[in-house]
Amino acid sequence: MQIMKKQTRTRKSKLPRKATRPSRKRRVYRFGKKTDGDASMLALLGGKGANLAEMARIGLPVPPGFTLTTEVCNQYHANNRKLPASLDREIRAALKEVETSTGKRFGDPENPLLLSVRSGARSSMPGMMDSILNLGLNDRTVKGLARKSGDSRYALDCYRRFIQMYGDVVMNVRPRNDHAHDPFDEVMDKLKQKVGVKSDVDLNETHLSELIERFKSLIKQTTGSAFPQDVFRQLQSAIGAVFESWQNERAIVYRRQYNIPHDWGTAVNIQAMVFGNMGDDSATGVGFTRDPATGEKVLYGEYLLNAQGEDVVAGTRTPKPLAELADELPRAHKELVALQKRLERHFRDLQDFEFTIENGVLYVLQTRNGKRTGLAAVRIAADMVRERLIGWKTAVNRIPADSISTLLVPVFKDESRRNARVIATGLPAGPGAASGKIVFSAREAEELGRRGDKVILCRHETSPEDIHGMLAAQGILTARGGVSSHAALVARQMGKVCVAGASDVQIDYQNRRLVADSVRLKEHDVISLDGTTGEVFSGQLDTSPSEVIQVIHGRTKPEHSDTYGLFNGIMRWSDRARRLKVRANADTPDQAAEAIALGAEGIGLCRTEHMFFNERRLGYVREMILAPTHDTRQRALKKLMKYQRDDFIELFRTVGERPLTVRLLDPPLHEFLPSHDSPDGTLAEHLGLSPHAFAKRLRELHEQNPMLGHRGCRLGITFPEITEMQVRALFEAVVAVIKSDGIRPHPEIMVPLVGFVEELTHQAAIIDRVAAEVGRRSGKKLPYLIGTMIELPRAAVMAGRLAGTAAFFSFGTNDLTQTALGMSRDDSAPFLVPYEKLDIVRRNPFASLDVEGVGFFVKLAAERGRQARKGLELGVCGEHGGDPDSIRFFHEIGLDYVSCAPHRIPVARLAAAQAALAPPSDNDR
Amino acid sequence: MQIMKKQTRTRKSKLPRKATRPSRKRRVYRFGKKTDGDASMLALLGGKGANLAEMARIGLPVPPGFTLTTEVCNQYHANNRKLPASLDREIRAALKEVETSTGKRFGDPENPLLLSVRSGARSSMPGMMDSILNLGLNDRTVKGLARKSGDSRYALDCYRRFIQMYGDVVMNVRPRNDHAHDPFDEVMDKLKQKVGVKSDVDLNETHLSELIERFKSLIKQTTGSAFPQDVFRQLQSAIGAVFESWQNERAIVYRRQYNIPHDWGTAVNIQAMVFGNMGDDSATGVGFTRDPATGEKVLYGEYLLNAQGEDVVAGTRTPKPLAELADELPRAHKELVALQKRLERHFRDLQDFEFTIENGVLYVLQTRNGKRTGLAAVRIAADMVRERLIGWKTAVNRIPADSISTLLVPVFKDESRRNARVIATGLPAGPGAASGKIVFSAREAEELGRRGDKVILCRHETSPEDIHGMLAAQGILTARGGVSSHAALVARQMGKVCVAGASDVQIDYQNRRLVADSVRLKEHDVISLDGTTGEVFSGQLDTSPSEVIQVIHGRTKPEHSDTYGLFNGIMRWSDRARRLKVRANADTPDQAAEAIALGAEGIGLCRTEHMFFNERRLGYVREMILAPTHDTRQRALKKLMKYQRDDFIELFRTVGERPLTVRLLDPPLHEFLPSHDSPDGTLAEHLGLSPHAFAKRLRELHEQNPMLGHRGCRLGITFPEITEMQVRALFEAVVAVIKSDGIRPHPEIMVPLVGFVEELTHQAAIIDRVAAEVGRRSGKKLPYLIGTMIELPRAAVMAGRLAGTAAFFSFGTNDLTQTALGMSRDDSAPFLVPYEKLDIVRRNPFASLDVEGVGFFVKLAAERGRQARKGLELGVCGEHGGDPDSIRFFHEIGLDYVSCAPHRIPVARLAAAQAALAPPSDNDR
Repeated sequence: MQIMKKQTRTRKSKLPRKATRPSRKRRVYRFGKKTDGDASMLALLGGKGANLAEMARIGLPVPPGFTLTTEVCNQYHANNRKLPASLDREIRAALKEVETSTGKRFGDPENPLLLSVRSGARSSMPGMMDSILNLGLNDRTVKGLARKSGDSRYALDCYRRFIQMYGDVVMNVRPRNDHAHDPFDEVMDKLKQKVGVKSDVDLNETHLSELIERFKSLIKQTTGSAFPQDVFRQLQSAIGAVFESWQNERAIVYRRQYNIPHDWGTAVNIQAMVFGNMGDDSATGVGFTRDPATGEKVLYGEYLLNAQGEDVVAGTRTPKPLAELADELPRAHKELVALQKRLERHFRDLQDFEFTIENGVLYVLQTRNGKRTGLAAVRIAADMVRERLIGWKTAVNRIPADSISTLLVPVFKDESRRNARVIATGLPAGPGAASGKIVFSAREAEELGRRGDKVILCRHETSPEDIHGMLAAQGILTARGGVSSHAALVARQMGKVCVAGASDVQIDYQNRRLVADSVRLKEHDVISLDGTTGEVFSGQLDTSPSEVIQVIHGRTKPEHSDTYGLFNGIMRWSDRARRLKVRANADTPDQAAEAIALGAEGIGLCRTEHMFFNERRLGYVREMILAPTHDTRQRALKKLMKYQRDDFIELFRTVGERPLTVRLLDPPLHEFLPSHDSPDGTLAEHLGLSPHAFAKRLRELHEQNPMLGHRGCRLGITFPEITEMQVRALFEAVVAVIKSDGIRPHPEIMVPLVGFVEELTHQAAIIDRVAAEVGRRSGKKLPYLIGTMIELPRAAVMAGRLAGTAAFFSFGTNDLTQTALGMSRDDSAPFLVPYEKLDIVRRNPFASLDVEGVGFFVKLAAERGRQARKGLELGVCGEHGGDPDSIRFFHEIGLDYVSCAPHRIPVARLAAAQAALAPPSDNDR
Repeated sequence: MQIMKKQTRTRKSKLPRKATRPSRKRRVYRFGKKTDGDASMLALLGGKGANLAEMARIGLPVPPGFTLTTEVCNQYHANNRKLPASLDREIRAALKEVETSTGKRFGDPENPLLLSVRSGARSSMPGMMDSILNLGLNDRTVKGLARKSGDSRYALDCYRRFIQMYGDVVMNVRPRNDHAHDPFDEVMDKLKQKVGVKSDVDLNETHLSELIERFKSLIKQTTGSAFPQDVFRQLQSAIGAVFESWQNERAIVYRRQYNIPHDWGTAVNIQAMVFGNMGDDSATGVGFTRDPATGEKVLYGEYLLNAQGEDVVAGTRTPKPLAELADELPRAHKELVALQKRLERHFRDLQDFEFTIENGVLYVLQTRNGKRTGLAAVRIAADMVRERLIGWKTAVNRIPADSISTLLVPVFKDESRRNARVIATGLPAGPGAASGKIVFSAREAEELGRRGDKVILCRHETSPEDIHGMLAAQGILTARGGVSSHAALVARQMGKVCVAGASDVQIDYQNRRLVADSVRLKEHDVISLDGTTGEVFSGQLDTSPSEVIQVIHGRTKPEHSDTYGLFNGIMRWSDRARRLKVRANADTPDQAAEAIALGAEGIGLCRTEHMFFNERRLGYVREMILAPTHDTRQRALKKLMKYQRDDFIELFRTVGERPLTVRLLDPPLHEFLPSHDSPDGTLAEHLGLSPHAFAKRLRELHEQNPMLGHRGCRLGITFPEITEMQVRALFEAVVAVIKSDGIRPHPEIMVPLVGFVEELTHQAAIIDRVAAEVGRRSGKKLPYLIGTMIELPRAAVMAGRLAGTAAFFSFGTNDLTQTALGMSRDDSAPFLVPYEKLDIVRRNPFASLDVEGVGFFVKLAAERGRQARKGLELGVCGEHGGDPDSIRFFHEIGLDYVSCAPHRIPVARLAAAQAALAPPSDNDR
């Protein structure tokens, strides 16, 4: 059935060359003019082999070659580590075809065919096994390479590198242990000393020739055998060595760690080398089928004439934009444009490809789905639906949920932009607007970042050591490097504002200065980056909300904003797909309004204590806490109640008849008090307490572990008058809006930090009593639900009995993570950071739900709760409610809603849709 | 089959009167001369009825009476709240028999029979339903009572009390709501005002006669009906009222709370009243079949001649010891001695009984198993085995496990005792020795107790309000009250040292003074109590270890100590019965030696950090923590290693080949540093740190919630060199003792605070590596196990995978309680104390395992762990390892051992035996 389907598909797609279905015993699979395999043959050809076959099959100009199957690997090891004798003939036949199609000959001193020999298992095992490049070089063919490339030094350097690689991989001339020096490096160092040069690049042709001889001697001395001049022997031995490397120690350890079966074996890919440095009709470069920063549909990329791939990646020569190739090599450019179309038609996604032009002939070395910015992800997905390349569900699935939030980030105000001075322009590598202090090192970026300063990290170019500084910075500016540079790649992934390769910018690390357009700036001066246009401004620019936010706030009309159109489209598709509802954590009417505008279907968490945090109210809260008599306390509570009721009235007016989940007072009381160290004399006086009594009360309230202390419902039970005040304020607000606005509100009252069933029933009794009293007095029947937070492991265990009283559960996954893992969020950095490095945790469990651990409790409570009460409402109000991976888990275990910060609402909607569209994953561990 | 057995037993036991098996329809069950029921008929007769029947059946002289069954209650409610008409005849017949056997007549003005009418359900519902005493009094019979008792005032007082009780219970003359006054009290208050007396006892006979008339008027006015003079109508109405009370609101609420079915119904017990105040041939008292303080086999108790039971309980007259009754009422005394034997032969346990002698005739009102001190519990159990009253298993089961520890408490040194002055002697109500500051109030006791002071609470007599003060005190001294007084009862239960009723002591609350034997002491002066002899000493006495400890330390020979003999006997029986092994939490060789002497079978928890807590080592620990360079840290670690290795060597020499469970460093590092507020300049200087850098480091180490912070294996992972040092010290110690002592130690290395499998494997890799290194160098194969603590909810969830690496689990139930309940032990008092009062928690979860919550995780981990690894060793090292209730749970879920503080070892051995002997309980919630 499945095979039939595949055949149908194959027949339908009009491919230039059709894959020849191989006989079952086939061991050598060709790719190039004739191609035997395809993408489906992963198990047999390995990842790289299947990919090469697929590229060739759909007509991409890949350098020709062939793949020895993974079965040969197993045969090799079963056969006492020997290649089957009969294989030789097949290899020679395949090689012949490569020679024909490249017009070169293996071992030919005039026009030598050079080969790469690479491993390629079914599952990627990066860096675990060996590869050899430029195989086929020997004392004679090196001269051919020199002639063809017009660069003798280059040819000699290739040759010495090949000998070193071959010596290491095939002939085992390598350091004896981890601490020993590489023997080839030692030889080279000695030579450099002798000829008096410091760097490899200072070795001239004579030196390199001598080095080659010394390398050969080293091999002879160490192994007793000479470096082989017979290119076919080179090939056979290299193939054997790659198969050997399947069984090397680190590969075995790696497979064990990632559960890769040892009998999968690796394939070996033998492919013609092509060279972009064969003269001015040669080039090398990278291309994108659309702009990965903005998503625009243009052929995007860069190239270097007469260069090898390394030159592009290294960033030492600044590459040119692909558009210029149309002038320099018009035929190749035309082929690239054709390639762009073919790639998109086949892969139906943004492709990031590497190419080489050798003497005017275009070769594609690799293509893969391209990384892109959030904006680009949204635009490409939306455009491709319009172009009928993909369906809306695919579009929804393809946008990393987090990236939708990049559409909400602020932009520079037009006016501010007009008045500012552009001092440089670079590649717009990470869209968005950022202003900050100039810093020149990652360390400095981190340090200032910790202080809360906004910084722009300015570097010649970035490297992996800069990652932490890039994370800490608002924006990144580099003077060198293009679209594939480290800075551009990382910014794309992090969603950071980035201007890359702004070559007019001169950075002087030594003196901590930056000069651009004759403006001289020093460390900590402020600059601004527009990562959408690539502009660099001196000074601070004002920002305004993003177009999406402006539309939402009614300040721009939807039809005037392209970005809003994109945003809205994706959101509509998301809402069509998702099952999970999305609510917001919002404590004020403003926050609630913004959340609803962004699509919230209710408020999942209103932290009532946040209503207390303003100066006057705080005074009453302190009075309440420190009250020496019952009367004083009641008086303070009465005053607070008035505020709280008015706040609730405003909230209900904003939220309307959507559910509004109100959490009763949660934090420990001492959070409302001045710090222990600096008792405030006036407060004591105001409360009529002696300084001594006041200090004593502060001391009494101090806790060793406030997180596990007197908070949550423990407060409402020891001070029932607080709960009473809060629910009275709420119910009086309900009555008020029913009467004045005709709204029928839906409050859901949530009791925090419940561990014992009796805690919940105690608080529920107060709530019911006050509701009855207020209801009786007003003559209204008050609608409300009582529920509990599940944020303690014990609560999860008791969920069945809690559901006897609770009509809903809201998972407080922040605290549940703290308690289930015994990990204080505030104190975890000193070990969580090393833990992530040591792979003890994959992601910070406070950012993304620990599904195995904390997830167990969420699932347990959901199951026990639902079993006890049909229709029990289940939601999440921890910060995980806005994390896509966590949302997927919540969807899978069947929760009703997630609640998150207002600005995460779009992310949650999209992630919920993706969860609904995805096949179920295995969480049943 | 079961019935046959019961019949056999009935036939065998030669009881004076055999129970007559009733017909199925019987509604009235007699007890007294003829008895229809027995103890087995709980459902039909209720608890009190079955008990009265049983007492009568075995020949105890209970006042005669009869029981209306619980079925009648149901009929009453089914029958529209009316008694079945036919019942009347049966009641009259039963009443006739009571009249015959008492020689009194119901309603007879000359010699009136008075009755009590009491409820009695199958399950005790204390205070929930109504009772009526002295029923049968009316205007005429009151005169008979006056004549018989020779006390008119007493008779009138009984009458007015009866009218009040009847008016309340039967005729519903009672306060309208909880806040209103009692109408009878209002009438009495008015009368008192009118006649100008303050207290009830000042009302004379004339006043009481008037009060009776006013009460009658009140009833008439309120209800429209007169208080009935017809005694049989009184009885009928009273029976109806008791049945009514089964359905009153508080009874219904109570049943709902304790899951008592509403259709059980209550029985009604109608019993002849007897009076101990009928002259000098009458008396009332309490008796114990053995001394409840020491366990000695003597008839023990006290009585008051010509008095009612209230007089004994109230403590207003000081009762005489029972021995004196032999002179005053020799025949009754003889009967009491016979009763003592009969009670013990039947109940085979210490009986605590109430009796009344009415005109020379002995009546037993109640008997029950007596409360006893720990010492008495042990002695009685051991003696009863010797007397063949019970078997050894029963003996083991009958000793509250905690009480065995009273045999280990210190006693006063003989020398010290000889030199001290005895200022008073009282009842030895709670054995043991205690010295402390005199305090006169519970509040003061609590206050000083909190400061860590030892106090002796001195009161005229104690009451329930004093409980908290009694808990806080080392000892309790009362000037009044006997063996049944509140102080004696509570001290017995709490295991507190207590001298009760030391009548020579004069206490002056006002001036906070105490005078005894002309020694004048004031508040906070020190006194000492010997609760075993009843002596009170002025000043502080030195204590020495208990006899048991002296024997264990070889300072006394076992055969010279009776107490040790008792202790040893119980321990031998316990060891025979138990399955759970018992280990000790011990950090030093001394502690380990003591634990082993007390029966520990290994060390279940050696906290290695405790080895660091002495001044010199602490210095190195601080160096290690604050070390500015790697070298400084290594140097400090090296010094620490030496100490740690030497400590381990000593420990191994003590523990021998028993398992020794070593926990790696656990507490947060800042616990080793001086407090944040007072940075120590010299330390900073010593470490070569500037005060600024030093303060900064302290700040860095400060944590919001240290309990959930950088501790446990998190330290060993971020500072692997600490783990390495600790295990190297351990393994070098292993090698040393193998070589020098020929011991083959059994270290079990325990990784603390594991939540992630990778944490354990990380630490296990270090342990294995160091073991291999030390082993290789020494040429010894090192025996050791690696295990983990289960003290985080996540660890319980991951137990299956943890068991892949761990050969044992040790449940750290302290931390597991803190995390599962989200409750910091240090901060929980402000809410846990109210929680216990509100019945939200039954017992403090840090003292006794929260089986429903924390127990879930222990069970989960045990199951998952054992499933993954057969033979996985499971133990407990939290403080719950010494708590009997918790031990029972650990036994039931099949753990291998508990580990507890050395002094709790005997308790744990006994509790483990009891768990093994008990039928399994239902923990499968």
